[in-house]
Amino acid sequence: MDQIKPYVIGVDLGGTNTVFGIVNARGEVVSDNSIRTQEYATIEEFVDASCASLKPLIDGVGGIDKINGIGIGAPNGNYYKGTIEFAPNLPWKGVVHLADLFKEKLGIPVAVTNDANAAAIGEMTYGVARGMKNFIVITLGTGVGSGIVINGQLVYGCDGFAGELGHVIMVRGDQGRLCGCGRKGCLETYCSATGVARTAREILSTTDKPSILRELAPEKITSLDVSIAAGKGDQVAKDIFEFTGKMLGEACADFAAFSSPEAFIFFGGLTKAGDLIMEPIRKAYNESVLPIFRDKPQFLVSGLMSSNAAVLGASALGWEIKND
Amino acid sequence: MDQIKPYVIGVDLGGTNTVFGIVNARGEVVSDNSIRTQEYATIEEFVDASCASLKPLIDGVGGIDKINGIGIGAPNGNYYKGTIEFAPNLPWKGVVHLADLFKEKLGIPVAVTNDANAAAIGEMTYGVARGMKNFIVITLGTGVGSGIVINGQLVYGCDGFAGELGHVIMVRGDQGRLCGCGRKGCLETYCSATGVARTAREILSTTDKPSILRELAPEKITSLDVSIAAGKGDQVAKDIFEFTGKMLGEACADFAAFSSPEAFIFFGGLTKAGDLIMEPIRKAYNESVLPIFRDKPQFLVSGLMSSNAAVLGASALGWEIKND
Repeated sequence: MDQIKPYVIGVDLGGTNTVFGIVNARGEVVSDNSIRTQEYATIEEFVDASCASLKPLIDGVGGIDKINGIGIGAPNGNYYKGTIEFAPNLPWKGVVHLADLFKEKLGIPVAVTNDANAAAIGEMTYGVARGMKNFIVITLGTGVGSGIVINGQLVYGCDGFAGELGHVIMVRGDQGRLCGCGRKGCLETYCSATGVARTAREILSTTDKPSILRELAPEKITSLDVSIAAGKGDQVAKDIFEFTGKMLGEACADFAAFSSPEAFIFFGGLTKAGDLIMEPIRKAYNESVLPIFRDKPQFLVSGLMSSNAAVLGASALGWEIKND
Repeated sequence: MDQIKPYVIGVDLGGTNTVFGIVNARGEVVSDNSIRTQEYATIEEFVDASCASLKPLIDGVGGIDKINGIGIGAPNGNYYKGTIEFAPNLPWKGVVHLADLFKEKLGIPVAVTNDANAAAIGEMTYGVARGMKNFIVITLGTGVGSGIVINGQLVYGCDGFAGELGHVIMVRGDQGRLCGCGRKGCLETYCSATGVARTAREILSTTDKPSILRELAPEKITSLDVSIAAGKGDQVAKDIFEFTGKMLGEACADFAAFSSPEAFIFFGGLTKAGDLIMEPIRKAYNESVLPIFRDKPQFLVSGLMSSNAAVLGASALGWEIKND
């Protein structure tokens, strides 16, 4: 009865779009579909629309009996409770009982977690962390998120909210950059895509170094512009990545003192800058870490870097949950 | 065959003394003994002397067949390898295969870990963390150590050296205090007993605030002097604890973002200052932590505060290891 079924469903629930994918045991997305998250004022309407969107996909692999479970990655997703709680960028306010609603509709196990945790489980199941028992995934997107694996298990903490490494304080006191969380100096304010753009504006406005970034209106500069400029050899753009990487490397040195992982795995748009960002991370880590952890962990780029990465990550949860 | 036997042995291997205790399942030290660590130039001599010291204790409870295992807490102890590695304050250099040597002599399972991890296992087995699955023990002694429990398991990391929270960086850059590890700004340089004495000297030499601590030679001031002065209402002494507690509370805020523990448990001499240190920790934590973690964890003082605490902590490992 407890036989594993051949497919799982991965759901990447984002502020703009929600993407559904059917995934097989080799980690291939065999079919997918999507809806626009913001079009559904109530969570019930959203779940109805999701099930309608999933129906042809499920039918295509032989029906719901072929599906082992659904994993949903969502902002502020709570694994213990199967809820989304107070997500600022979603249309549904307060605590949303997402897992229960999907379970009721589809009759198969459902697990919810946040996007960074989904990425970590994805890396462990299909990606560069296969076979690893201790690693940390750091997602560099609009914000900075993290999924921590210790002894082969994802770290959820006492309340399901562990792994908020984007909100460790890197610059203490009033000089720290103001963060969306209301505090100052969080890692996220320096190393997210928006943090990189902020660093660009700071360097451009406080120095007169020549840079092709000066051809753009300062408030329009994105981390992608910085990547492109750095790729062309622009020194200011390289300095920006140097600064960002140093901050990340120093943060990883503190994380090593906590859980001594065998790898740090970076996920998200910023990693497209390749060695321009990865080299400064590695260098700053080795320069600032406690000697016993020097040169120990690997610094890797996600193995799930495709348009389907988030779906794939979330889907991996669908293998873990038991039918009950 | 896999029946649990009625006693364990706890060994607190310190730079000056090594203390042995026989402990029953209720966490009572039924008998103890000790030797002077520094008197044994080779590890073989030390193990021989240890076994001689243990013999009457073991005989007293009915022989070696009554002992489930030995847990040893030692500086730089490595759980995975059963070794002590490059401990600066012990007479034996390099890597010492402690578990193997004891196992050979006594024929029962032996586990080695560092003192702070032993304290964490002790709290979980006999102390204030009974029933908890996610907590962090912070030891405030000559240094600052930590033992981290996640999902009911001690965190050893990929190499056995995880949980070095005394060496997260609290003050970045050149202004940080120089640490014994060779880096600057480690938590340990501010919040260990020696860190507290350092803070005292700094405040006394940079201000002219009246204080009974001025009656002492600055280089002789200890954290105990500060405790006593604070107990008498001395404002400078209170300021020192305020500063120390603030640093610890801010560090705990970062640790919460990592593993969201249900409790922080403080162990060691400094906790004798009671609310003078615990209140500033709690206050700084709540003021600086990410809102979702505010007012969530408990801030507790160790439940193992006796002269035998370290033996008790180490002994708890003796219940975990299997006979093989």
